[in-house]
Amino acid sequence: MSRPAAQRPRLGLIGYGAFGRLTARHLSPWFEVLAHDPAATAEEGDAARLTDLATAAACPVVILAVPVEGLAQTLSAIAPDLQEGALILDVGSVKVGPARLMAEHLPAHVQTVGTHPLFGPQSARDGIAGLRIAVCPVRGDRIARRVAAFCRHALKLKVFLVSPEDHDREAAVVQGLTHLISRVLLSMEPLPTRMTTTSFERIMQAVEMVRYDSPAVFRAIERENPYAAGVRDRFFDLAARARADLDDGAAAQASSGPPVGSLGSSGSPAS
Amino acid sequence: MSRPAAQRPRLGLIGYGAFGRLTARHLSPWFEVLAHDPAATAEEGDAARLTDLATAAACPVVILAVPVEGLAQTLSAIAPDLQEGALILDVGSVKVGPARLMAEHLPAHVQTVGTHPLFGPQSARDGIAGLRIAVCPVRGDRIARRVAAFCRHALKLKVFLVSPEDHDREAAVVQGLTHLISRVLLSMEPLPTRMTTTSFERIMQAVEMVRYDSPAVFRAIERENPYAAGVRDRFFDLAARARADLDDGAAAQASSGPPVGSLGSSGSPAS
Repeated sequence: MSRPAAQRPRLGLIGYGAFGRLTARHLSPWFEVLAHDPAATAEEGDAARLTDLATAAACPVVILAVPVEGLAQTLSAIAPDLQEGALILDVGSVKVGPARLMAEHLPAHVQTVGTHPLFGPQSARDGIAGLRIAVCPVRGDRIARRVAAFCRHALKLKVFLVSPEDHDREAAVVQGLTHLISRVLLSMEPLPTRMTTTSFERIMQAVEMVRYDSPAVFRAIERENPYAAGVRDRFFDLAARARADLDDGAAAQASSGPPVGSLGSSGSPAS
Repeated sequence: MSRPAAQRPRLGLIGYGAFGRLTARHLSPWFEVLAHDPAATAEEGDAARLTDLATAAACPVVILAVPVEGLAQTLSAIAPDLQEGALILDVGSVKVGPARLMAEHLPAHVQTVGTHPLFGPQSARDGIAGLRIAVCPVRGDRIARRVAAFCRHALKLKVFLVSPEDHDREAAVVQGLTHLISRVLLSMEPLPTRMTTTSFERIMQAVEMVRYDSPAVFRAIERENPYAAGVRDRFFDLAARARADLDDGAAAQASSGPPVGSLGSSGSPAS
């Protein structure tokens, strides 16, 4: 499926961190990837060539793999070098804010689409086929549908073509809760590793995937998503209710002796 | 490895619910299992024969698969029928309380050991080999070591021979947190199933395993474990701190405009 080098269009990748490198690896069969990142140094086996900002920004396709909180500044910096008709995409964990920023800051002569690959270096260790990506129209549906088709057919991803609002509403739960729970568990370390249950191990596998995400990712998920605070409030309200129920029960139990179950009714240890 | 029926010793199983049935299935190659449970009816393919309480209690090995909160009453009910030298085991999710109850209520002429199989019908769907069990001495180490050896060699379980206190301290984290988090997530349903991440799916697999556990299991784990309330307090304190940090950050951000990251530094969407 990959094209000979001479025929591959250039793709400018702004931001060459862990996710930028993953992006380069999976897009290099289709594009000649030119990456810009002042913090990056060339490594053996790199799928991208490092270059200056203006060169990366002047490519017919430009992917912004920078933290959501740095997006506005990046958009201002690349705007003068963007080519007429170029396609600009972001890969941030939230979509409402970035879509608005891209619509506001990018010149009218470029096309733009928001994406959120629902995976990272940890979960993509065995390849990206079958993993998920959200694709959000920013200016017009047509180019978004083309990006979606490429993700589906070339990258073999499961594609969700959704509005930025629908994305953020769902991500506020999926990512907001996962990261919140994981951060709290990480702060409780060391956690048991001996007498574990299968269900506890599943949770710890989730924690392990989140462990190496940067604080900027956590901030984007929890702060830049307009629905995250609401989900958090709901989680904490329900948790407080569960806690009160348990503490009430414990108090009632302490004052009236242990509850006595009916003889012979069937118990089961937890999964 | 299984013995001919005529040579198999009788095993009395008090409580024939979901976990009792799992127990019967895996012990029937070594024992003739006689189960007592007023709530149970015979089903096709049963690995145990249903019987009255006195008959089950008079077996040389007796397993108590009743809810922890009903254990004291069960012990009183079976005491008159227990045979000299019989081995009595429980399978509850907590061990300090049940060990004390068994030591107090059981006649001096029986042997007794606490166990906690760290699995249930969900996690044992594909067999129990390689799954974990805690074995806790109640009266003497020798019989506990024999039970541990049987679990290791006959059932192929990973065995942890620990004191009831060590068990409960670890289970307060492993099971206490898993069940608490799962209960809160279950109360937030419906949860997203489309644009999910691998880490969120791991957490939901844990929730799925806990979903069908009885309320009695949840109460045992959260209330009868003497260390559970402390773990809960710690989880909620750290969660409250994480929440305050995020809300403070959001407030600071609202008053001073969005934080601006350095250009080109490398972002990565979450796993």
